[in-house]
Amino acid sequence: MHTADLGLPVDVPSTALFTDQYELTMLQAALRAGTAGRRSVFEVFTRRLPDGRRYGVLAGTGRVLDAVENFRFDPDVLRFLRERHIVDAETLDWLAQYRFSGDIWGYPEGEVYFPGSPVLRVEGTFGECVLLETVILSILNHDSAIAAAASRMSSAAGDRPLIEMGARRTHELAAVAAARSAYVGGFATTSDLAAGFRYNIPTVGTSAHAFTLLHDNEREAFRAQVDSLGADTTLLVDTYDVAEAVRTAVEVAGPGLGAVRIDSGDLLLVAHRVRQQLDELGATGTRIVVTSDLDEYAIASLAAAPVDAYGVGTQLVTGSGHPTASMVYKLVARAESGAAGDDAAPLVPVAKKSSGGKTSVGGRKWAARRLDSEGHAEAEVLGTGPVPASLADRQLLVQLVKGGEVVAREPLDAARDRHTAARANLPLSATQLSRGEPVIPTEYWHEGSGS
Amino acid sequence: MHTADLGLPVDVPSTALFTDQYELTMLQAALRAGTAGRRSVFEVFTRRLPDGRRYGVLAGTGRVLDAVENFRFDPDVLRFLRERHIVDAETLDWLAQYRFSGDIWGYPEGEVYFPGSPVLRVEGTFGECVLLETVILSILNHDSAIAAAASRMSSAAGDRPLIEMGARRTHELAAVAAARSAYVGGFATTSDLAAGFRYNIPTVGTSAHAFTLLHDNEREAFRAQVDSLGADTTLLVDTYDVAEAVRTAVEVAGPGLGAVRIDSGDLLLVAHRVRQQLDELGATGTRIVVTSDLDEYAIASLAAAPVDAYGVGTQLVTGSGHPTASMVYKLVARAESGAAGDDAAPLVPVAKKSSGGKTSVGGRKWAARRLDSEGHAEAEVLGTGPVPASLADRQLLVQLVKGGEVVAREPLDAARDRHTAARANLPLSATQLSRGEPVIPTEYWHEGSGS
Repeated sequence: MHTADLGLPVDVPSTALFTDQYELTMLQAALRAGTAGRRSVFEVFTRRLPDGRRYGVLAGTGRVLDAVENFRFDPDVLRFLRERHIVDAETLDWLAQYRFSGDIWGYPEGEVYFPGSPVLRVEGTFGECVLLETVILSILNHDSAIAAAASRMSSAAGDRPLIEMGARRTHELAAVAAARSAYVGGFATTSDLAAGFRYNIPTVGTSAHAFTLLHDNEREAFRAQVDSLGADTTLLVDTYDVAEAVRTAVEVAGPGLGAVRIDSGDLLLVAHRVRQQLDELGATGTRIVVTSDLDEYAIASLAAAPVDAYGVGTQLVTGSGHPTASMVYKLVARAESGAAGDDAAPLVPVAKKSSGGKTSVGGRKWAARRLDSEGHAEAEVLGTGPVPASLADRQLLVQLVKGGEVVAREPLDAARDRHTAARANLPLSATQLSRGEPVIPTEYWHEGSGS
Repeated sequence: MHTADLGLPVDVPSTALFTDQYELTMLQAALRAGTAGRRSVFEVFTRRLPDGRRYGVLAGTGRVLDAVENFRFDPDVLRFLRERHIVDAETLDWLAQYRFSGDIWGYPEGEVYFPGSPVLRVEGTFGECVLLETVILSILNHDSAIAAAASRMSSAAGDRPLIEMGARRTHELAAVAAARSAYVGGFATTSDLAAGFRYNIPTVGTSAHAFTLLHDNEREAFRAQVDSLGADTTLLVDTYDVAEAVRTAVEVAGPGLGAVRIDSGDLLLVAHRVRQQLDELGATGTRIVVTSDLDEYAIASLAAAPVDAYGVGTQLVTGSGHPTASMVYKLVARAESGAAGDDAAPLVPVAKKSSGGKTSVGGRKWAARRLDSEGHAEAEVLGTGPVPASLADRQLLVQLVKGGEVVAREPLDAARDRHTAARANLPLSATQLSRGEPVIPTEYWHEGSGS
């Protein structure tokens, strides 16, 4: 049995409690009504991208697979549900035996998505699928929000590496998932040791202002750091006076000093001055790392500055203004009435229809990305029924779980590489930071619509 | 040994990896320089409140105490640090023996805070204190951001209960901590079963649109739900036509129907119509629950509507525009040079001094809340040195950890009650939702400043 890959440095036996109570009460009511076994199709999608964003980035799929695999109701959990009278005895018996046995399809991790894209499709009985809603949405909404911000930052940074250092600005376990998503979105390293431990992401870090303040003066602090970490370390030069610190740093470490870090002030101005000073001191190979409240716009504004790497914290782990991806998990089709348990029963498309908004398109959907004559993405095409021949080899959904078994595990680097490729395949305006519409439209395909 | 209270449904042996790498490399360099044993004082504070907010709400203190108590480097973690060459052998030996043995003082959980308030003060050797930075900030920054949003929502809701239902919009474990913080900030219940399991917060939930769509029509769905969950359940009435759904709901459940839930549309208008219809149908005791993308402003705008409870998701778990509290953990004082290991050595105040912003006030601080003649809070007064007699009984810091032992555990309800009392003691304008300055000023006390 695999352990739940929750980004924890320890194994967790179950993900079943990361669930809203109503999933269980719906199950109970459906069991009693005899409808819990109806074959059902749920899709995860977002009705819109965050305001002004040009594309979304799917992240968390690997964590979803682990969560589904470990979704079990152990005796402690069952006792809790019984003692709190959350569900009845029949439902508890059903839960004790629970194991997802259906199929899951989805966009592969790192892929881009647009409004309506069915980034995950969960198929099985109503009972077994409805239980997974909360944990699937938690993971995809969080991880995709971070990956989208990371992607914008990494395209703004170009070839310069990005360091994820936001652990202190978000929940301690969200931080681990955020480092993972940042890596998918193009970041190179993380400060978070748990992310290094759990996901093998390269970790970095040297010192903070506290280390300088611990010592009687900057020279003593720099000497202590260089003695211990070597001359190729990164010295933090903005505790007192930056110019004096840079001079001291090169005196202590020599011109082979690895890097200096600037964590405050007018980074554009200071980076230019520090570069000039380092060069004059012969430290031409010493890099400059900047780390002060950066977001994708600040990174872009430093493109012409002599900066070698960016460290990003708060704005990364909070999704740069959009901390959640607003994905929903909706029943889009179910077996015809009276056909419960019959896998061959025809599926009926279903959708909420009230006038108050939040409507969606029913039916089990395929998705394909149509390319223009130059091979760039031109439209996200969604449809029910047969896939038109022209789009057959552009389909986006791959099978992730088959009969309850995970069939599509992959290393995190695969998702990272896929994201780079998928983004490069979008129209050029995708990576403009300015606000705009989704960079390609979402089209619903109908017989004869010509796609 | 206590287990780490991470909001997990299972026990976690250690929190030591929820740490930025530089905490460990600073330790290594300080060990080598002979400065790791210098007595040090770190304080957690925020330089400013989120833009426009009138007060902050401290939450997460209880989780911090558990994290500190369980901050250990077990063999798996040490092996990881060794194999990745993150620290040297001497440091690994030191870490293997690590156990925080210092003192922690702080504002009690649920208390309000203002710019500069030293909401936590950690004292011990530099080495033992610096390691705790990341996990302490992760917890307080996340939990306090959620609690602040919860507090604004609960004051907007008045006596009407608030349901926390944001699990699906945030990381699955952040969700558990968010439910905990929401409870501290005044929410009554949560949808998140893990939060019920871990923190004994009352859980609620009945059904979603998927349950209605699973059935051939609304009547069948409502009947199935009432048959299983009883007439005092909450029926969701906005899948198709609201007026028809309300009629069907009362027909199926009878006038004793517990509640109806409205999850879309113009809530003000719809709530009035539904109330009138329910009353005409004799269901005068049936409550109305609304749950569509609410924040504190939407809640306030429904004050005159016949609404009985609010369910809040996205805006709660994302801090209603401010998903992190921007607290920092700063060395503010340390033993005089040459006095390493000597507990009696005088402390030297220290602070970053560069011109680029991010400066702070050095020195080990006390904090007190001065009251006006009517007993309302008038100023947050901070100082170093002796506490003036006039403020002696208004001090805010309490001892949480003494010689490494937690001395101030309390039930979550204590934090919740404290928050209600602390907020009520602020000037009335604190609970205005409009943007403004902190509702009381922060003053730094100097001998003769008259406080």
